[in-house]
Amino acid sequence: MFADFIEELLEDKHWALANLHSFLDESEDERWMRMALSLAATAGSQTHPNPRVGCVLVKEGQLIGQGAHLRAGTPHAEIHALRQAGPEAKGATAYVTLEPCSHYGRTPPCADALIQAGIKRVVLAMVDPDLRVSGRGAAKLQAAGIDVKMGVMEEEARRLNKPYLHVQTTHMPYVVWKTASTLDGRMATSTGDSRWVSGEKSRQMVHYWRSRVDAVMVGIGTVLADNPQLTVRLSHMRDVRQPIRIVIDTHLHTPPAARLLSEPGRTLIYCGQQFLQSEQKEELISQGDVEVVGVATDVNGRLDLRAMLADLANRQVVTVLLESGPTLSTSFLEQGLVQEIAWFMAPKLLLSGKSTLLSQQPITRMSDALQLDSVKVRMVGQDILLTAVLGGQS
Amino acid sequence: MFADFIEELLEDKHWALANLHSFLDESEDERWMRMALSLAATAGSQTHPNPRVGCVLVKEGQLIGQGAHLRAGTPHAEIHALRQAGPEAKGATAYVTLEPCSHYGRTPPCADALIQAGIKRVVLAMVDPDLRVSGRGAAKLQAAGIDVKMGVMEEEARRLNKPYLHVQTTHMPYVVWKTASTLDGRMATSTGDSRWVSGEKSRQMVHYWRSRVDAVMVGIGTVLADNPQLTVRLSHMRDVRQPIRIVIDTHLHTPPAARLLSEPGRTLIYCGQQFLQSEQKEELISQGDVEVVGVATDVNGRLDLRAMLADLANRQVVTVLLESGPTLSTSFLEQGLVQEIAWFMAPKLLLSGKSTLLSQQPITRMSDALQLDSVKVRMVGQDILLTAVLGGQS
Repeated sequence: MFADFIEELLEDKHWALANLHSFLDESEDERWMRMALSLAATAGSQTHPNPRVGCVLVKEGQLIGQGAHLRAGTPHAEIHALRQAGPEAKGATAYVTLEPCSHYGRTPPCADALIQAGIKRVVLAMVDPDLRVSGRGAAKLQAAGIDVKMGVMEEEARRLNKPYLHVQTTHMPYVVWKTASTLDGRMATSTGDSRWVSGEKSRQMVHYWRSRVDAVMVGIGTVLADNPQLTVRLSHMRDVRQPIRIVIDTHLHTPPAARLLSEPGRTLIYCGQQFLQSEQKEELISQGDVEVVGVATDVNGRLDLRAMLADLANRQVVTVLLESGPTLSTSFLEQGLVQEIAWFMAPKLLLSGKSTLLSQQPITRMSDALQLDSVKVRMVGQDILLTAVLGGQS
Repeated sequence: MFADFIEELLEDKHWALANLHSFLDESEDERWMRMALSLAATAGSQTHPNPRVGCVLVKEGQLIGQGAHLRAGTPHAEIHALRQAGPEAKGATAYVTLEPCSHYGRTPPCADALIQAGIKRVVLAMVDPDLRVSGRGAAKLQAAGIDVKMGVMEEEARRLNKPYLHVQTTHMPYVVWKTASTLDGRMATSTGDSRWVSGEKSRQMVHYWRSRVDAVMVGIGTVLADNPQLTVRLSHMRDVRQPIRIVIDTHLHTPPAARLLSEPGRTLIYCGQQFLQSEQKEELISQGDVEVVGVATDVNGRLDLRAMLADLANRQVVTVLLESGPTLSTSFLEQGLVQEIAWFMAPKLLLSGKSTLLSQQPITRMSDALQLDSVKVRMVGQDILLTAVLGGQS
């Protein structure tokens, strides 16, 4: 029901229809949980870095309160629903898409609020993997004599917060790799010409995606070859939030004149720790809202991508749109750091040129190829858009 | 309405539905012509090397006769329809999807039969480009005082006989290039392993296509690397007609033990004329129903593919399924000899390995890439099947 990250962005509008169909053969608990999931989904990506959560309160078959978490720092879904129900909440059943929190964060614990309101039964889709909650919320409710049912529509609830859950369990952001090639897999001609592989509609779609992720990322190769702006440029959207721009630049070769440094919004440049003291760094950070971050390099002198991603997770970056060229893309894929791919294929053949992926450690057996799951294809203008999740990560 | 060659094979079953929808807003002439087109389509690929033709006879709004050409050497569509109508044909209107023949071939001229039956009006979808007809059939009817209307549903009629019309105008067969790659465009690993790129369902689909074309073609590289059988192997189909197997083998390196030489059906090996006198040739033709054909080579010592295709057209080969590797495929595409492509993409990434196309004369500008039209994608099992026609050839 809930789709993968990119799929969902593409199919938001189908939600109402999906609801309609699925009301036919599900239990009462599933029906109310679906409503709570639907409420949660309305917040889109704006709850960042919090998960999306929905809550509905039901008493004697009647809906008496509903709520969704809308923005970090504002009340959680349960609080909105309890406020709407008022004293009626006493004796009601609460359907919540994620285990209520049991700790004091920016808001008081929701578990306490449910107990105080006199809720009689709580139906939960899933445990919150956040180590500050992780079962404690449910236990607190049970200790207060509330009947707790767990795991109703758990799969749908997991899909709703896939990037959040990924960060909670791996402590690295959820990475969607986006690329564009000709039908024969070339992203540029042998001389490097890549303007344009994909069509106008596809490029607009990427700008929309950028507006929905926390960060966009490229390697130094792309900065030097294309000098990209890496901003959201959507003529029909106002007040666009610019994602953080990230450059993976082991030897700190980013030119101070690079366009992305002076665009609105923030830029992070990751380099090897030994380059942190260079004059180049001073020049770069003088260009605007630019930060240069040092991370460890491996025995081959290449940046430790896991350490880099861990640093991003600490900065509350949940979703990354990786728009890298062959070198960085191949490293991410080889190290299992990509969760989803979105591949635009233009209806043309180059017969030669630069591949969108190029490994220095070839896989020798076809059966050892990286497997993709949940493959979907559709047309975007003249281009084909192919989306998939990396095998074993559904 | 009528789809391209591969599309049609895929969508045969949708014909009835398409009919239903389109009956809504078309003229009386279009309605009967659509019925004639539908009749023509029922023959599938079995009219080879003749075009598919349908005919319906209508008198006072009533259908009084119908016919389709079913096999070369048997009566044409018009004759079946006239026989069914009998004396009633006098004064009727005939709807024919292709200009009636005016010459004595294996059957007498249909134009004469329509005149003799007393047909009053003839509605035609298109002129027959066959130089023996090409306007003479229609002229003969008009000379006999028959009212002739030309060009009703011409586009649909052209699509119905796309390969036939291609041969008539270019004197070369209609070539569909089929390939399979990983999502990143690799057909084999760096060590050559290619078993299997695509899934079982995709491979079965290719066997079905083989049963519907006149010839399948590979280069010597594929013979040496894969030793393919190139036969139709479909467990659920009886009495399968095996297509001619063709090997493009400039220096006559085909091993006499190659599996395809001893399979049921015929094999043609094209080589440079200078290799026709070799002992190798004698050994090859002793292996079964094998013929070695010499054609001219160009200044680089490579086989003249146009001359080879012209020879195939003379042998009444109308459709070729090109199942070649990178070298031959690239040559065909660079020389503009491919009309359609069918590309299976397996849901996996190899990150390295052999590309399905590899040109020695790189295109340097993205805007000079070969353009594809009528791109369609669908899932076949786990694989993506992409079909398209080469730009400017729709």
